[in-house]
This record gives sequence, structure tokens and C-alpha cells, in this order.
Amino acid sequence: MDFRDHIRVISDFPKEGISYKDITTLLKNGEMYQVAINTLVEKIKPWRPDVIVGPEARGFLFGAPVAYALGVGFVPVRKPGKLPAKTIGETYDLEYGFDTLEVHADAIQAGERIVVVDDLLATGGTMLATANLMKKIGADVIGMGFLIELTVLNGREKLMDYPVFSLVEY
Amino acid sequence: MDFRDHIRVISDFPKEGISYKDITTLLKNGEMYQVAINTLVEKIKPWRPDVIVGPEARGFLFGAPVAYALGVGFVPVRKPGKLPAKTIGETYDLEYGFDTLEVHADAIQAGERIVVVDDLLATGGTMLATANLMKKIGADVIGMGFLIELTVLNGREKLMDYPVFSLVEY
Repeated sequence: MDFRDHIRVISDFPKEGISYKDITTLLKNGEMYQVAINTLVEKIKPWRPDVIVGPEARGFLFGAPVAYALGVGFVPVRKPGKLPAKTIGETYDLEYGFDTLEVHADAIQAGERIVVVDDLLATGGTMLATANLMKKIGADVIGMGFLIELTVLNGREKLMDYPVFSLVEY
Repeated sequence: MDFRDHIRVISDFPKEGISYKDITTLLKNGEMYQVAINTLVEKIKPWRPDVIVGPEARGFLFGAPVAYALGVGFVPVRKPGKLPAKTIGETYDLEYGFDTLEVHADAIQAGERIVVVDDLLATGGTMLATANLMKKIGADVIGMGFLIELTVLNGREKLMDYPVFSLVEY
């Protein structure tokens, strides 16, 4: 069983030269989707997380079912202006320009054990910003799990402070 | 057990006069989140869906775990430009202006039984657009489930062609 058989690769999306990994073909296969979530859960469970954190929007597709399966809370990390209560933000550099992520200031209790889940580890920029955001609100990031890792982009280097795993590498 | 005890109400978000229902307080409570998903699953299971469909982004937080728990596929409905393969779109009116939703043209097989899941039924505009999108790709919407329903906005009237349920009403 190879998750790669269920991930569609699309050339030149969102721009020329990028070979996009399309997870929707995996999501629509109920059996494979369940296996993917169960595999993430198996790997994350020994970390005994109190909360799963996932960035908008594709992170919700993996983080939310993992939280549900583990019976722990899920905390969404969102783009600016989406969260209704008091937020804390973290701005980070993109290839061109910058972006900001936000989390509710009261989303996590100090000392809670956090595992971050996302569909894809690419450059690690979003993940590092998410980890920094967690630090700001006093939470302890004990690991990160991804469905896909694009190894050539060296995301792990940026995330050296954290245990990281992925289910498939490209 | 009342889900309302775990939903935070925030005044004047995203604009004055709106009393926003904040689901993040429910999501971060692992036990309550699990109960909410299990309750949705119990109600949806008798419809024997082949696929759960959920609109970006909060629809992912409920639709994805429901699909996982049922062992069926999940199909995301997204804003324009987010889906990498060939899409079909549906444009619908907002209070000011309009919006468009997209789904992959090959996301669903003709005749598949679809249940749409979202966090909130308000005016029903997004849901009607989602149902129309499903019709366009030949799928059969057999029902819709929501965590929250704002009854004063009469969303059900727009969705009269479909069985609709919600777990809490305001």
C-alpha cells in the first residue's frame, strides 16, 4: 500500500514549474483516507498530545480527524481576520512578500502538549510560524506530522527543534 | 448536554450587529468535539452516503471527521483557484456582491449519494450553491447536516428540496 498511488500529481500548478501534489484523489477514497488518518494517529498517539493544531485550510482535512480519533481538542490556525476572539499573530516571509497566521490567544493552556498536523511539508515556513505562534501562547510543541514531505525543499532543516514525520516523501 | 454551553457567542463580528457563533471553544474540548462528530455520524449514517461534501474552510472541521468515521470519501468544495485539476463552478449572490464555489469536475461519480456537512446554516446561500454544484456533476444530494442553525435567517426555506438537520438552533 503506497499513498502515492492515490495522490495525483499536477504539473505547473499553481504556477509554471511546480509539480503540485493533489490530495483530493486520496480524500475521495474512503478506505485510503481512513488508512491515512489511522496511520497518522498511530504515530502521534505515543506523543500523548493534549491538542492537535492544524493550519487553514488543508491542515483541517488531516488534523481534525486525527483529533477526533484521539479524543483530544483541535485548534485551528487561521489567516488574519477569520478568528472572532482575541488573537495572537505571527508574520513570516514568503518567496515574494509575507504572510500572517493567527490563533486565539486563549486557545491553549500553558504547558499543554501540542502536535501540529498538516497535509504537506514543503519549505517549512508555515510550520515554523505555527510553532512560533504556539511558543508565544506558552504551549509545548512536541511533534509535527505530515501526509506528504517534499524532501528537496529541506523543510526539516527549519524545524530541527521538533520531531517530524511524514507518511510519503517526494 | 447542550452544545450551546461550548459555543462562544461574540458580539459584532465580523461586523456590527452580528452575534457570531464561535465554534473554536467546542473544537478545543476533545470530549465535546467527539460527541458532536458522533452525533452528526449517527444522524447521517442511515442515509448511507457514498461521499461527504464540505465547503471550505470550517466545513472541513466537521465534514472531514464525519467522512473518516463513516469510512467514506470526503470531497472539498473550495473558493476559486484553490483546486488544481479541472473544476466546475457555481456563482451565487451575497448581501453585497457575489461569490463562487468550485469542485473538481471528476470528484464524484454520477449517481453517488452525497451528504453535505457544514458548521453553520445561516441564509442557506452557500449550501444551495453547493447543492447546485453537486447537481451539475451528476451527484444526488440526499441530505445536509449542520452543527448550528440560525433559524431566524430561514436557510431551510432555500433548501426545501433536501432533508436538513442541525444539532443546535439559535
